[in-house]
Amino acid sequence: MSIIQIIGIEGLPIIKAGDNIAELIYRASERQGTPIQNGDIIVVTHVIVSRAEGRVVNLDEVAPSLFAKTVAELYDKDPAMVEIVLREAKSIRRMADGKIITETKHGFVCANSGVDKSNVPGERFVALLPEDPDASAAKIRREIKRLTGCDVAVIISDTHGRPLREGEINVAVGVSGLKPIRDRRGEKDLFGYVLRVKQTAVADELCSAAELVIGQANEGVPVAIIRGYKYIKSEDAKATELIRSREKDLFL
Amino acid sequence: MSIIQIIGIEGLPIIKAGDNIAELIYRASERQGTPIQNGDIIVVTHVIVSRAEGRVVNLDEVAPSLFAKTVAELYDKDPAMVEIVLREAKSIRRMADGKIITETKHGFVCANSGVDKSNVPGERFVALLPEDPDASAAKIRREIKRLTGCDVAVIISDTHGRPLREGEINVAVGVSGLKPIRDRRGEKDLFGYVLRVKQTAVADELCSAAELVIGQANEGVPVAIIRGYKYIKSEDAKATELIRSREKDLFL
Repeated sequence: MSIIQIIGIEGLPIIKAGDNIAELIYRASERQGTPIQNGDIIVVTHVIVSRAEGRVVNLDEVAPSLFAKTVAELYDKDPAMVEIVLREAKSIRRMADGKIITETKHGFVCANSGVDKSNVPGERFVALLPEDPDASAAKIRREIKRLTGCDVAVIISDTHGRPLREGEINVAVGVSGLKPIRDRRGEKDLFGYVLRVKQTAVADELCSAAELVIGQANEGVPVAIIRGYKYIKSEDAKATELIRSREKDLFL
Repeated sequence: MSIIQIIGIEGLPIIKAGDNIAELIYRASERQGTPIQNGDIIVVTHVIVSRAEGRVVNLDEVAPSLFAKTVAELYDKDPAMVEIVLREAKSIRRMADGKIITETKHGFVCANSGVDKSNVPGERFVALLPEDPDASAAKIRREIKRLTGCDVAVIISDTHGRPLREGEINVAVGVSGLKPIRDRRGEKDLFGYVLRVKQTAVADELCSAAELVIGQANEGVPVAIIRGYKYIKSEDAKATELIRSREKDLFL
């Protein structure tokens, strides 16, 4: 029988710049009696990674450009916040309805370049996405291996709105140790029919599964362990494999 | 400590028209020693619901229209399949690259109006989406209640490609008993900041979580029980709440 567990990691301290997140996750998982095991997938919400990496900005210290000020006035937004969103963007996709949809430097298309106001201490502080979320995931993974001896996969997650459907879901912005897409083309279905279209975005599905414990706990649980899912290992996987190029995108 | 379990239901027979899916799920879950409990969420892949409801078409008995034939020739597709896709569509959103993206009669935007070739017995048979997936979910839910006495939620899932990101994920096309979107606006984060943008598409996340056991088993497991997630109950919820109107869609 196939059972997968999603285990919320509680009791993590408030993460600050310089913290070793892997060590804190390791200790918290030991403390709550769910020690990390071989084959676990550890899903970490990006905002604690950003905080640990010092990717936090005090909006009071930001000098907005004229363009940022103009946009802020048009859309009734904070000019310093707009400035940071624009600095983190490769391009602006859309501005309307008080929202700025951009393509981040990494290539993710999302609201506000992934800049987050929630779960950041200090009223005027915001968290940016990690500079290189795959590298952040790889670092946590190496540290977990060093501390526990366990081979795990690590995913950095973010909350994204999406086209066509209401509501946000959690998706992967950084991966280490697993293939983010499981290519099932060529496999056979129940009746021997060979699947022609089937590439499952498992890294995104794992983040959405993790969100079920993370979101339920009012952000007090920023990390989940997913146990029992046999992922396909990879040493050179990148979360950018999950980005569909504009040219290939039939929906847009 | 917060632990959610995703339990794959094995040993279901091949579903055929007229089958009582709820009873088969009930029996299979008892047999494998994971009986249904109060508060469980039962995620059912749409194709077995379609088969039970007789929503299966023999392509050899379909007379394609001239338009279907033209499209089929242009995109190197089966004219009968194109005919069925068009019959199930409210509108065509895009045709290119051998793919037809439509809006289904329910309002879902997806490839081929959700018409599925895989996991349907018979080489020339395809499965359509259930006529009213919310009603299908409600019927299964009522039957589960009658058979087990348990209050559960039921979600009908489908595999969708999506804009912006590569790979498919499972999402909800029918719901019964739970609110598909958890509105967290107004809640406070870890530091007392009031969330302004936070509406989580939990029904979609639950389907993606379920896919982790369903997809792993090569379609031999078309049903998963999710246990331990405290969903928000609703008697009048609809999966169409998850559809973003074109007017509101800033991404498109």
